[in-house]
Amino acid sequence: MKKILICLLLLFPVIVAAQDQDSLLIRKIFDEALTSHVAYENLGWLCKNTKGRISGTPQAAAAVEFTRQVMLHMDLDTVYLQELMVKCWKRGDIEYARITSSKFGSEDLAITGLGTSIGTDDEGIVSQVIEVQDFDELAQLGEEKVKGKIVFFNRAMDPTRMNTFRAYGGAVNQRTSGAAQAAKYGAAAAIIRSATTAIDNHPHTGVMIYQEGIPKIPGVCVSTRGANLLSAWLKEDPGLNLHLISNCKNYPDVTSYNVVGEIKGSAYPDQIITIGGHLDAWDNSEGAHDDGAGCIQSIEVLRLYKELGIRPKRTVRAVMFMDEEIAQRGGKKYAELARLNNENHYAALESDRGGLLPRGFGIGTKGDRLEKFLALEKYFVPYGITEFTRGGGGADIGPLRDFGAVLISFVPDGQRYFDYHHSPNDTFEQVNIRELQLGSASIAALIYLIDKNDL
Amino acid sequence: MKKILICLLLLFPVIVAAQDQDSLLIRKIFDEALTSHVAYENLGWLCKNTKGRISGTPQAAAAVEFTRQVMLHMDLDTVYLQELMVKCWKRGDIEYARITSSKFGSEDLAITGLGTSIGTDDEGIVSQVIEVQDFDELAQLGEEKVKGKIVFFNRAMDPTRMNTFRAYGGAVNQRTSGAAQAAKYGAAAAIIRSATTAIDNHPHTGVMIYQEGIPKIPGVCVSTRGANLLSAWLKEDPGLNLHLISNCKNYPDVTSYNVVGEIKGSAYPDQIITIGGHLDAWDNSEGAHDDGAGCIQSIEVLRLYKELGIRPKRTVRAVMFMDEEIAQRGGKKYAELARLNNENHYAALESDRGGLLPRGFGIGTKGDRLEKFLALEKYFVPYGITEFTRGGGGADIGPLRDFGAVLISFVPDGQRYFDYHHSPNDTFEQVNIRELQLGSASIAALIYLIDKNDL
Repeated sequence: MKKILICLLLLFPVIVAAQDQDSLLIRKIFDEALTSHVAYENLGWLCKNTKGRISGTPQAAAAVEFTRQVMLHMDLDTVYLQELMVKCWKRGDIEYARITSSKFGSEDLAITGLGTSIGTDDEGIVSQVIEVQDFDELAQLGEEKVKGKIVFFNRAMDPTRMNTFRAYGGAVNQRTSGAAQAAKYGAAAAIIRSATTAIDNHPHTGVMIYQEGIPKIPGVCVSTRGANLLSAWLKEDPGLNLHLISNCKNYPDVTSYNVVGEIKGSAYPDQIITIGGHLDAWDNSEGAHDDGAGCIQSIEVLRLYKELGIRPKRTVRAVMFMDEEIAQRGGKKYAELARLNNENHYAALESDRGGLLPRGFGIGTKGDRLEKFLALEKYFVPYGITEFTRGGGGADIGPLRDFGAVLISFVPDGQRYFDYHHSPNDTFEQVNIRELQLGSASIAALIYLIDKNDL
Repeated sequence: MKKILICLLLLFPVIVAAQDQDSLLIRKIFDEALTSHVAYENLGWLCKNTKGRISGTPQAAAAVEFTRQVMLHMDLDTVYLQELMVKCWKRGDIEYARITSSKFGSEDLAITGLGTSIGTDDEGIVSQVIEVQDFDELAQLGEEKVKGKIVFFNRAMDPTRMNTFRAYGGAVNQRTSGAAQAAKYGAAAAIIRSATTAIDNHPHTGVMIYQEGIPKIPGVCVSTRGANLLSAWLKEDPGLNLHLISNCKNYPDVTSYNVVGEIKGSAYPDQIITIGGHLDAWDNSEGAHDDGAGCIQSIEVLRLYKELGIRPKRTVRAVMFMDEEIAQRGGKKYAELARLNNENHYAALESDRGGLLPRGFGIGTKGDRLEKFLALEKYFVPYGITEFTRGGGGADIGPLRDFGAVLISFVPDGQRYFDYHHSPNDTFEQVNIRELQLGSASIAALIYLIDKNDL
């Protein structure tokens, strides 16, 4: 015991010196990130020139080419595309919703079709509206009350939850499954309160999913102001009519790509660390926070490595995943190719919660390895990043869990995120350069520590 | 010793129960703040209807009346005004700066006069420009090089500093004292790089101070883009000319007011806890973050108390201070009246760092009392508020230190603040409702704990 103690005491200065060195290197990473405008300007270009880049669109193709070109000019070891087939859904030129009440008159609601939804026919649907808060209430009403009606799902995100992602989780099943659930009881269409913390007049879209064996009915979302109006009118006039027209449409799958850039590892080139975001974004937005920021931060990590002359022991890849928003085909293709190529995935980090103020990381491992990760928090305290928590992953890196990779979520502050999410609010102007820079630096610093210390 | 231990053990459940009760009450405060839109809407009204409310203007008078009316409708124990005289400085209708270079041609720069600056005459000043980074460099150049020239102070806020207020502190003396320093060596005018982290084309104004016995020369600030352009041109063409015209002017002092609303203490009504922000805002901005947010949060604390039926032991006052931006006459008047009325000031909190995401509080006390304050952090961890640090105060509450009051700074995240500060960027649209709400709740919770636990 005493000998161990003496050994530890002798080692102590070495450990401290290594820590100091790491702290200094991390300081350099933050300094470089905070003084460079490259990532911010690239994000601006992406937002303004490939706006509405939902998978299968020319804008998505332009985003693939832009990020490929950016990485080709960075002196990386390799830059390449991974081909895949993606779903193709397109909003039409008509999205119309008008409520008419014998008591209040008529009013247009701001709506937008949900991703993969079918449209209505040209004349649209005119029907009474039945408001519900959840699927239980819908089931209680049953076919008798629901058949032929438009079901209005109006459960708001709970504003008292500090974790807005949990509040989103508590509301989003209305959007993903509301139309299918309503169709079970013969509904004509579903109109869903936007899943957002903002009270505004922008509808926030997102994907919906039809169920096999249940008729497909149109699903649209309505702005939170529109939802509040509709609900208020319904209380006084339950017999009011909603006229709904939408001509969105699903098309055959098309070819698209993931974009990959990498720095080869100096010691263990076969061990791969993936840093990724998704390149597609909803057609009604610039996709600045969701998820242009995550893509640009992934590229910025490689730029920071090159600029500071950091040579990682393992291969570090920046991956722009395609099609996260609809069917996560990019993430699946990446894992499929990894399996095919017998790749060894050491760790993977996803940035898909906005280019906002970094608060911490979610770490998807357990036991000793988790403890080692959690102990890294001390390096980040000077940068106000103090929330290292258990549990991490992401829609695109999720399949890499089977490879034994530690899955990590980059966790910026979430208070603003759902104001922007899936809506026209998600513009480049809503990204603060320092918050974006701090996010890139914190990811680069974490990846550096993981790789250097073989965590 | 054993007896003490047993006593402590017996007390333990009581202490824990009290803590749980406090935690529950704090949860209620946050829930109420996060579900009410009252404060946010009041801030919107203030920003949109009293834009440019620098002291001495009709807009400042409108802001006084609006906040008075808001508090009069809140069933407080008393609402009143404190009369004071304020400086009156007004921007004119001409602010013009054009650089002309034999090499590059001509270009307009975005400038704005600094608060209390004199203007130029009608024809303005046409002169060569001499760029310096600081007062030492200016002194080294001396009268020989400076006389008759326009001195251009171009030291940027250091972007690598995490604490943006420190970065501001490292640059702002150019704005406050640059003109006076340049005048010492016979300069014709001073043009100063805006103290902001943003690279944009909005000049960020602020107060400047003339020195007795030194001639007054005009002081203006230039946008960061303008400063970068001017600096780049000067490198290639040091002989370029700057033509500067500004017709801002100082007027005689006028009457204005602090606005005070209070809830009388139930046990110690003579002990006063002040919560304040400043009502005046620069004439080129809506003053949303600086400092409409601080005023509205102060009022919101009283609303939360009333709504939740919290009766404080001590008298809690919301104070809208007038004239923080120019001469802090409101804060001085408040202290002067406190002295006159023999008031007993227990604690004072200032919110003047924006309606941004709360990170913590700065506590201006020491020893045991400081330790007790720092121990409150545990109540705030569930809300992501974990930065309780030593050292607190504020421009308006500062004079209350002499009364033995603990001075507290509300500390929201500072990464975005200097993008908005003293510029047209500081609009209501830049305030996120949840961040504003969380700030109000955290202030209310802290004041509740201080009062309840006699800290």
